[in-house]
This record gives sequence, C-alpha cells and structure tokens, in this order.
Amino acid sequence: MKQSYIKNFEEWEEGFRFSARMRVRFSETDMFGHLNNTVTFAYFEQARIDYLKSLGLMNDWLDPKGERIPVVADLQCDYMKQVFFDESIDVYVKADSIGNSSVDIHYMAKNAEGDVVFTGRGAMVQISKKTGSGVAWTEEEKDLFYERTRN
Amino acid sequence: MKQSYIKNFEEWEEGFRFSARMRVRFSETDMFGHLNNTVTFAYFEQARIDYLKSLGLMNDWLDPKGERIPVVADLQCDYMKQVFFDESIDVYVKADSIGNSSVDIHYMAKNAEGDVVFTGRGAMVQISKKTGSGVAWTEEEKDLFYERTRN
Amino acid sequence: MKQSYIKNFEEWEEGFRFSARMRVRFSETDMFGHLNNTVTFAYFEQARIDYLKSLGLMNDWLDPKGERIPVVADLQCDYMKQVFFDESIDVYVKADSIGNSSVDIHYMAKNAEGDVVFTGRGAMVQISKKTGSGVAWTEEEKDLFYERTRN
Amino acid sequence: MKQSYIKNFEEWEEGFRFSARMRVRFSETDMFGHLNNTVTFAYFEQARIDYLKSLGLMNDWLDPKGERIPVVADLQCDYMKQVFFDESIDVYVKADSIGNSSVDIHYMAKNAEGDVVFTGRGAMVQISKKTGSGVAWTEEEKDLFYERTRN
Repeated sequence: MKQSYIKNFEEWEEGFRFSARMRVRFSETDMFGHLNNTVTFAYFEQARIDYLKSLGLMNDWLDPKGERIPVVADLQCDYMKQVFFDESIDVYVKADSIGNSSVDIHYMAKNAEGDVVFTGRGAMVQISKKTGSGVAWTEEEKDLFYERTRN
Repeated sequence: MKQSYIKNFEEWEEGFRFSARMRVRFSETDMFGHLNNTVTFAYFEQARIDYLKSLGLMNDWLDPKGERIPVVADLQCDYMKQVFFDESIDVYVKADSIGNSSVDIHYMAKNAEGDVVFTGRGAMVQISKKTGSGVAWTEEEKDLFYERTRN
Repeated sequence: MKQSYIKNFEEWEEGFRFSARMRVRFSETDMFGHLNNTVTFAYFEQARIDYLKSLGLMNDWLDPKGERIPVVADLQCDYMKQVFFDESIDVYVKADSIGNSSVDIHYMAKNAEGDVVFTGRGAMVQISKKTGSGVAWTEEEKDLFYERTRN
Repeated sequence: MKQSYIKNFEEWEEGFRFSARMRVRFSETDMFGHLNNTVTFAYFEQARIDYLKSLGLMNDWLDPKGERIPVVADLQCDYMKQVFFDESIDVYVKADSIGNSSVDIHYMAKNAEGDVVFTGRGAMVQISKKTGSGVAWTEEEKDLFYERTRN
C-alpha cells in the first residue's frame, strides 16, 4: 500500500470494529460505468455518522439548540479497485488518533469478495457554534472513542 | 406535445422571459452515458432560485431570522431528448399562474441547437416557519410575478 | 389527495406489493434542514430498479451487449410531509398500467410512523439501442408485471 | 498552511494559470447551512476536466472508441473556510508534477473576497481500456502540461 496513513496494513485493518453497508445507486455511476469518485466521500460521511451515533456522540451535534458542531478539516480517498452499479460495499470506520478537540478518522471499503476497493482518512474538529474555536472532548467522550479503538 | 400543462406550445414558449445556463458535469452523467434523470430537478431548483432572485423575492426566505419559507409542493419533468456530458443547457423559467400563497412555476430546457430537451412544472407554496400554513403573497409580490409573466 | 394519478387512495395503496428502504443521508439534506426535493427522484430510481430486478427484468438492460435499454419518459413527485436527516423511508413501487413498450410506475413513500411523506409516478419506455424506437414487451414480460400488480 | 503538498504557499499559488468558476447550488448545501464537504470533489472533477480540455487532452478519453481512459488514483481536500449557498467559487487547477503515465493535479479554491476556502490534490493515471495498465504520456502530451505549468 502506498497510502502514507497506513504503516502496516494488517495492523491497520485489525483496528476496525464498525462498518456500515452502502449499495451503489444507479445515479451514483458515471458515463465510465463506475461509481463516480466523488461519491466515496458521501459514503465516508454516512459511515462516519453511523459510527459516531454508535458511540453515542451525535446527539447534541444535530440538536439545533446544541452549542457544538463537528467540522470536517480534511478528507482523502485512495481508489484501489473500480466499483460498479449495485455492488454492496462495507465501509469500515475507526478513530485512528484522538486530539484535544479533534479526531482522525480512518476508512476502509471492501466489496462482497472482500477486496479493499478504497481507503481514506480525514480529521474532524468539534467547534463552538458561537466562537468557531475548538471545544475539547470531555474525558467521557475520549473514552467512548478509545473503547471502540483499543478493545 | 403530450404534457398536460402545455396547451399550445408556441404560446407557452413565448411566455418565458428568464433563463439560466447549466453545464452538464461529469458526475451528473450515469452509466448509460446520459445526464441522469434525477439531475434535471437540481437544474430546475437552481433556475427557479435564480428567477426568484431576479424578481427580488429570495431575500428574506434565506434569512435565518425570516418568518417565511418557500416549500415545493410538487415537481414534474418530461424528458424529450437525451442530454450528454458537457452540454450547455438553458433552463427557462416562468410563473405560469399565481395563487393566494402559491405559484405554479414552469420550465423549458433547450440545448445549444435550440432543441427542447426537457420541460417541467411544479407548485411552490410560501409558508410560515412557525405555523406551517400558507402566507399570502403581498400585492407587491404578485406584481413582481405578473410583470415578468405578462409583459 | 389532490394527485391526479390517485383516484381512490385506499385502492391505490392496496396495489403495492414491493418496497425498498432508503435512509436519509446527511449529504441529502439542504440548508432548510429537510431532505432536498431533488433526492426523492434518486429514491424513486433506486426503488424502481430494485422492483424491476425483483421481477427479473433488469438483466439484459444493464448488459453492455444488450440491445434494449429502459428510458424514463417523465417523472413527478408530490411532497406531503417534510423528511429529515436519518429517517428511514419505505418507497413502495408498482406497475400501474402497462402499454405496448411502456409501463407507468407509481411510487408511495412512508416514514417510520406510517405517514405518506411523498408519492409519485413516471412512465418508462423500453427502446432499442440502435433505432431508438420502442421495443414491445414480450407476453412473458407483461405477465411478470401483471403477477405482481394484480395478485 | 498545514497541507503537506504545499511547501511554500506563495510559490505554490503562483503556479496556477487556469481556473473554473462554480456557483454553490441550493441542493449542494446541507442542514448545517454549508456547502456539503462531498461537493468540493465534484468541483475538483469539473475544474480538472475544464483544465484538461483547455490543454487539448480530453478528446479521445471521452470517445467510446478511444483506447485510453483517465483514472483517479487518489483525491484529498483541506477545508479552510466555510462556503455558503450562492457563493461564486473560483477553482484553480494545475499539473504539479508529471510522471510516466500519471499526473499530480493540485487545486486551490477562492471565494469572491479572494480568501482561499479549500485546497486539494489528486493523482490521475492514464490507463488502457483493454489491459488496465498505465499508458505513458507522449512527449507532446507532456509538453502540453509543461507549457501551462512552467510558463
């Protein structure tokens, strides 16, 4: 693997505990007949939200009266195998490292044959709606990430 | 034309005063090589907003503190000719009839050769954010629609 | 109901035998906080393909060497209730009437509470890739539609 | 700047010769009111195609009878400032380095005030439709990239 965020693939792969299944829609293909390469980021977003919900973290982010909001700082995707219409893709998600108010989230997508079709990562920062600055994770929130990551 | 909302095509076509140009993106094509049929509604939305802005109507709808919001009641599209990657499509928009708190908006899309590639229509209702019920157009707002439609 | 394609809602509703579940993605919402009204057509498309596959009809349409291709002639959607992020929506599909080379497909979408959130319909025509003209359904294909519709 | 692909921002910025303007559509916003972060990749794709067309490189890639096809190997985006509905965004594109059959393309997006709102990069490889392996650029093609990049 050439991805700089994957040092040892076997170790990296073992760290995933959560996945969300996506099915490639007709409207997500393009005239080359493949899953258009902009759609993998929509799959990352959906899988990330499912993962954060499974940790119990999304609740007050979506509350219009909540004070904190998650912001995507960067995103990247490495395409390894073409994906086609109607394929079922499992998108694995994990928190790779946790900062003060940020988290680096990694993604691995596999097709039905178990081939890795694309991988990715991106940092997310929790900010205050009012000030726009980062809001540190509570110890409880950090634990939620660690439990899933290190168990 | 088989569209029930077009009685006389020449008269109907003459009623358009406004158009917005769209260019077909690669990500908007599908594996059949055409503009995917879900995208025409995104073109209608963009052309409708440009039209309403040109009338001076969008301002307080987008204001988070505004009290009124436009809601789409229905939408329809008739596909007449295939559209391909990189084509430039002019989407014409007009208010076909104005109700108390609603407006019936019609669309006609032409390619660079002047062929009608798709047509459509849809009703839009202005509602109150608080109550969810229709908010009547002011006489001034009705005039804005009529000026563009009847001149 | 004001939809012209629904004469008697109870009878119309009873005709559905097939549904496909969609979950509203974050990227499918818009700044008004709702499912953007262009996305319902992507749900229709996905549900229609799942329905046609369940009838055994999609196979040679997706084969690059196949001679026939389905083309959407028109589409419409009536919006009845707002849909929000993360809702699960069941999109029911049926062939409402079958022509020589076309079929009129109807849609009904319900949320988890069983409320009808949007309905729609659209005609689809089977055409020849070479000539572009309609290709009549075989008797066997008509039977596939009728079995599902009339049983 | 924290992006690893930007060593010196002023030098990096000076290398851009080409830009394509995008206008943020309503359907591209999400419930947080921002341009959804999956859409920046659709902007990159559109700007990249416009850039390659301006170099005279797209022609036979889109020809169904052509033998070569461009494939995206990876993509990344760094989000620096929120982008909102109806903003006009200029997406600058350049070939940052050219390999044997690949090219590393860089992107810089600025809003109407001239603020950099997001940056990105991604490698693209030219492959053979038949064999799937890389097809080396001709000297003429390399020159097309260099002219734009180094002048």
